[in-house]
Amino acid sequence: MMDVAAQLLAGKVAAGARAIRWLDDRDPRAGELLRRIFAATGRAHIIGVTGPPGAGKSTLVDGIIAEERRRGRRVGVLAIDPTSPFTGGAILGDRVRMSRHALDEGVFIRSMGTRGESGGLSRATYDAALVMDAMGYEVVIVETVGVGQEEIDIVALAHSTIIVCVPGLGDEVQAMKAGLLEAGEILVLNKADREGFEQTWRHLELLLHLRGDGRVAGGWAARLLPAVATRNEGAGAIVAALDEHRRYLEDSGEFARQCGRRSEQQFLALARAALMADLLCGPAAELLSHVRARRLDPYTAAEQLSAQLRAGRTPR
Amino acid sequence: MMDVAAQLLAGKVAAGARAIRWLDDRDPRAGELLRRIFAATGRAHIIGVTGPPGAGKSTLVDGIIAEERRRGRRVGVLAIDPTSPFTGGAILGDRVRMSRHALDEGVFIRSMGTRGESGGLSRATYDAALVMDAMGYEVVIVETVGVGQEEIDIVALAHSTIIVCVPGLGDEVQAMKAGLLEAGEILVLNKADREGFEQTWRHLELLLHLRGDGRVAGGWAARLLPAVATRNEGAGAIVAALDEHRRYLEDSGEFARQCGRRSEQQFLALARAALMADLLCGPAAELLSHVRARRLDPYTAAEQLSAQLRAGRTPR
Repeated sequence: MMDVAAQLLAGKVAAGARAIRWLDDRDPRAGELLRRIFAATGRAHIIGVTGPPGAGKSTLVDGIIAEERRRGRRVGVLAIDPTSPFTGGAILGDRVRMSRHALDEGVFIRSMGTRGESGGLSRATYDAALVMDAMGYEVVIVETVGVGQEEIDIVALAHSTIIVCVPGLGDEVQAMKAGLLEAGEILVLNKADREGFEQTWRHLELLLHLRGDGRVAGGWAARLLPAVATRNEGAGAIVAALDEHRRYLEDSGEFARQCGRRSEQQFLALARAALMADLLCGPAAELLSHVRARRLDPYTAAEQLSAQLRAGRTPR
Repeated sequence: MMDVAAQLLAGKVAAGARAIRWLDDRDPRAGELLRRIFAATGRAHIIGVTGPPGAGKSTLVDGIIAEERRRGRRVGVLAIDPTSPFTGGAILGDRVRMSRHALDEGVFIRSMGTRGESGGLSRATYDAALVMDAMGYEVVIVETVGVGQEEIDIVALAHSTIIVCVPGLGDEVQAMKAGLLEAGEILVLNKADREGFEQTWRHLELLLHLRGDGRVAGGWAARLLPAVATRNEGAGAIVAALDEHRRYLEDSGEFARQCGRRSEQQFLALARAALMADLLCGPAAELLSHVRARRLDPYTAAEQLSAQLRAGRTPR
């Protein structure tokens, strides 16, 4: 264990790969490891990339990696597929597209996809980003498949989020609206050489206008950028916008605050899990058996439990 | 409150609509209401319908409603859009398609879409299904947009789940695999008159074969059924399969067991929420402030909390 933590902090890829596998498998050794490396985290710029399937996210990430490398930064990539309990299929295909960086020692790419309890994957993804951060990757890109709630939770852990759209995805844009409205600091309209570009561009402009976050004095005004990832066009401007956003976060003190907030969320999630485990050995066990047998409705049972806890906390 | 519960139990639509709005808004009055109506639940056949956007779920649900009505059953429908904090857009369009049942007193259709904490929507959906159950709807259909983790959680509350596919959705089927493998008791290949039908049919047959649940003696072998929802074809066979599945659940004792399990989950979710609220006023508050200030890493903080709880439970 000491070895894995020490080697990871020295940037050893094998140790990092093992740590991320532990996280993906919910291996209990991960907790101790994270404790050991935590002090070395909080430096990496974590970038979330999401968008509908087929939007060309992986090809775009490929271009972003190349741009970041050109700027001399080491890049970690986490490819997350919440619907896939096995690493393979679509993800594997996407990984192959990234292979031009496979021999570059400054690039470390990992897939995660194990599905556990709700929220478990975004917690594991956050921890995996910390692992890459502690390994010394200055930029950590978290790329998801699809745009469901879980994907939005996952990219919410990022400092900067890129939403990738393509021309003519009327329904998908519709379905993404809610997430877009809250999540993306940078919107990329990929496949900009395609028919329907103008219309989708105007649609997205309107969306950003309605969001109006630029109106807040000192606030970040989301960027809309075109790209043709397959022709390697647009990545330079995207990385420039990312750098600008990072500076904005640092200047406003948000970078440090976000790290604190994410730690807080992580603590709450862990506390919740620990509490429930603890509780099921204790006061909740009997109530649960009544609920299971339908002798008691779940709402009354939860209220009784709360009452017991309040009574337990009263100083005696 | 007494009024809303009593009127709801008498099948009054206005009371049901109000109760579901409370659930959607996380109104505290919902808890007391659910307690009052709980004894009248456990009778409805809850049917989940999910599948990728554009698969024709709403048109298919429309046909299923008509078939259930022909069999003399009253039908409740919950249309769930986890990504939409506003009821409108895509959902509203879908609702319009169901309008031929709008004047039928035996049909009650509601949309829910408020996004809250992770897992909150599936909990609210379950409660809303209980409301419809208590109102006397023999069949409650829960229809989701998309096929992400949250949608799978939502349909997991159903007794019977229908997965709607369409020909030629290679990537989408790929992405759905994991959910399909676990969730669907009935697979419907809609738009069966489209090109690519044969290939997708064989693909799904293979998927079901790999699942192999029919091999378990006495187990339910998932059904694969074709449909052309826009021409009103296939709904009869789907409802026949649903009836068969309900009989299977009742004969095997699973129907009652599922009700118990869902109550149990509901209790655990409520208990978790209550606990966290309780905790944040108590022992966790100080740890949380340390984590926020990065004086303590979240993993150590969670462990310290667990230790405190264990010590607290030791009899004095």
